[in-house]
Amino acid sequence: MTAFITGAAGFVGSNLTDRLLALGQDVVGFDDFSTGRIEFLEGALRNPRFRMHHADLLDLEALSAAMEGADFVYHFAANADVRFGTQHPRKDLEQNTIGTWNVLEAMRRNDIYRIAFASSGSVYGEPRVFPTPEGSPIPIQTSLYGASKIAAEGFIEAYSEGFGLQAWIFRFVSLLGPRYSHGHIIDFYRQLRKHPNVLNVLGDGRQRKSYLDVEDCIDAILTAIRHNSANVNIFNLGTDDACEVNDSIGWICEHLGVTPRIVYTGGKRGWIGDSPLILLDCSRINALGWHPTRTIQQSVARTVQFLEDGPWLDTEQPKTSLVSTTE
Amino acid sequence: MTAFITGAAGFVGSNLTDRLLALGQDVVGFDDFSTGRIEFLEGALRNPRFRMHHADLLDLEALSAAMEGADFVYHFAANADVRFGTQHPRKDLEQNTIGTWNVLEAMRRNDIYRIAFASSGSVYGEPRVFPTPEGSPIPIQTSLYGASKIAAEGFIEAYSEGFGLQAWIFRFVSLLGPRYSHGHIIDFYRQLRKHPNVLNVLGDGRQRKSYLDVEDCIDAILTAIRHNSANVNIFNLGTDDACEVNDSIGWICEHLGVTPRIVYTGGKRGWIGDSPLILLDCSRINALGWHPTRTIQQSVARTVQFLEDGPWLDTEQPKTSLVSTTE
Repeated sequence: MTAFITGAAGFVGSNLTDRLLALGQDVVGFDDFSTGRIEFLEGALRNPRFRMHHADLLDLEALSAAMEGADFVYHFAANADVRFGTQHPRKDLEQNTIGTWNVLEAMRRNDIYRIAFASSGSVYGEPRVFPTPEGSPIPIQTSLYGASKIAAEGFIEAYSEGFGLQAWIFRFVSLLGPRYSHGHIIDFYRQLRKHPNVLNVLGDGRQRKSYLDVEDCIDAILTAIRHNSANVNIFNLGTDDACEVNDSIGWICEHLGVTPRIVYTGGKRGWIGDSPLILLDCSRINALGWHPTRTIQQSVARTVQFLEDGPWLDTEQPKTSLVSTTE
Repeated sequence: MTAFITGAAGFVGSNLTDRLLALGQDVVGFDDFSTGRIEFLEGALRNPRFRMHHADLLDLEALSAAMEGADFVYHFAANADVRFGTQHPRKDLEQNTIGTWNVLEAMRRNDIYRIAFASSGSVYGEPRVFPTPEGSPIPIQTSLYGASKIAAEGFIEAYSEGFGLQAWIFRFVSLLGPRYSHGHIIDFYRQLRKHPNVLNVLGDGRQRKSYLDVEDCIDAILTAIRHNSANVNIFNLGTDDACEVNDSIGWICEHLGVTPRIVYTGGKRGWIGDSPLILLDCSRINALGWHPTRTIQQSVARTVQFLEDGPWLDTEQPKTSLVSTTE
């Protein structure tokens, strides 16, 4: 069994890489290292069952060649910045939608028929029903990121119908845990390292969001793939509760032993496309026997601990020297 | 008031061009003439309030330049072939999704804030509820065409949220009437012209679909734009009934005075992504006072009459010599 993982050097992709190697699978990784980090693959690169390709998803030829011989594709590469979408609106289209189309096309060329896709709870825009189920009414998209992800879902489904793919589509809440590398915790952590007495917060701090630990997330993904056999299998993945940004601030400050003055920019949304409440109905995946093992508070604490243990996260440029670009 | 119409030489776009010119608006057309036909613009080209650009939606620079000075964008250009999606899967992505993104980006560059978009009832895939309302559960896409259109809808909505666009999104059933240029009627018409004694039909002939006359469709679009003022306005457009392919065959044969032997390929679907039943809930647009004026049978008959009157439809290559590509 050979797994092909796009975004293998990223937060989720690198955790998945380690897990599948531990399960005895061969793993071929693919990443452009735009946000992925070679440090996240230190363990994997010592494993002879792991190979890594450094290229861009938009390079269909490189992608097709890299995918040769794989049995299962985990498509986890993405531009994951919801917040900065309007600053470079083509990025979500290219990296998430066109990139996914390229993955599908490379699978077709290589006769690979199974794909797991990291979608996002942001495809629900600002839903009216909470917790939000998979079968919600067609949403109005509020972010380029969400739009690019629901677009990718649609192309996967059309390829499933047209070319016989089997697909697992996962709509995540925000993930936390080891190798976490973007989001409010790292923003707050960096601010508090620089000036422990002041914390600037986007919005009013009352946004409520569900979070999930990355290892629980990977458990859920593997559970879903093991149990389900429809052509298209769509699952929300999250915890059954949500916390306020203010709750998270309290846990972070407690962990770091600081008591900053908090300055809010105001408004219910921190940025364009920010959703004031994210809480997904996870009863479909729960029915397969999966439940998260960590609370949001536990995940926040171990994310902060990870940031404290990984000083490289303060550097801007990822190091990619360990990976050949010509492999 | 200057309207910019993509796909202006196409079936719907050329009818809309004529209508807006008749209403006294200035119209700038844009078409790559891949399926559009210069003959459809014969009247418009004699009007000094009409200008035409011949270029590809994928050429963002040409598109942005052509759009300069427009007040309202009608984005009606599309690859409209549901049936051949799997033969060239990149075409729907490029022409429908990336093309729409380019339209949005060109609008942003030109400070144009209003867009009407020709989406499709095929975004519902194979729905479970009939007639199918706009607020249906998020569908599973069954065609590349439907996937590319729902993707385009999402990007329009995200641009609306991010950049303040106002959008009208229309999910059409199949349209009929003057300048109709692809679909089952032209397929059957061509077959019967070649051999009046045999008609080959994809599927079992029992597929039931709603159709709408193109002039009724344009009335509906203008009604919706006049009445609605939400940021994102989504409307199904169709008639309240559906006919079987077999009904349509009967009307076509009656009109042509032929009685062919009918040979079915069999199966509930004529091709991958074909939906056995298309019937949209149009109560939202009906509530604005719009109702279709023609029955499906009347529209089928006048479509056949149009085909009989327009012998150029048997030629494969459109003529574009009347339009400058450098304008």
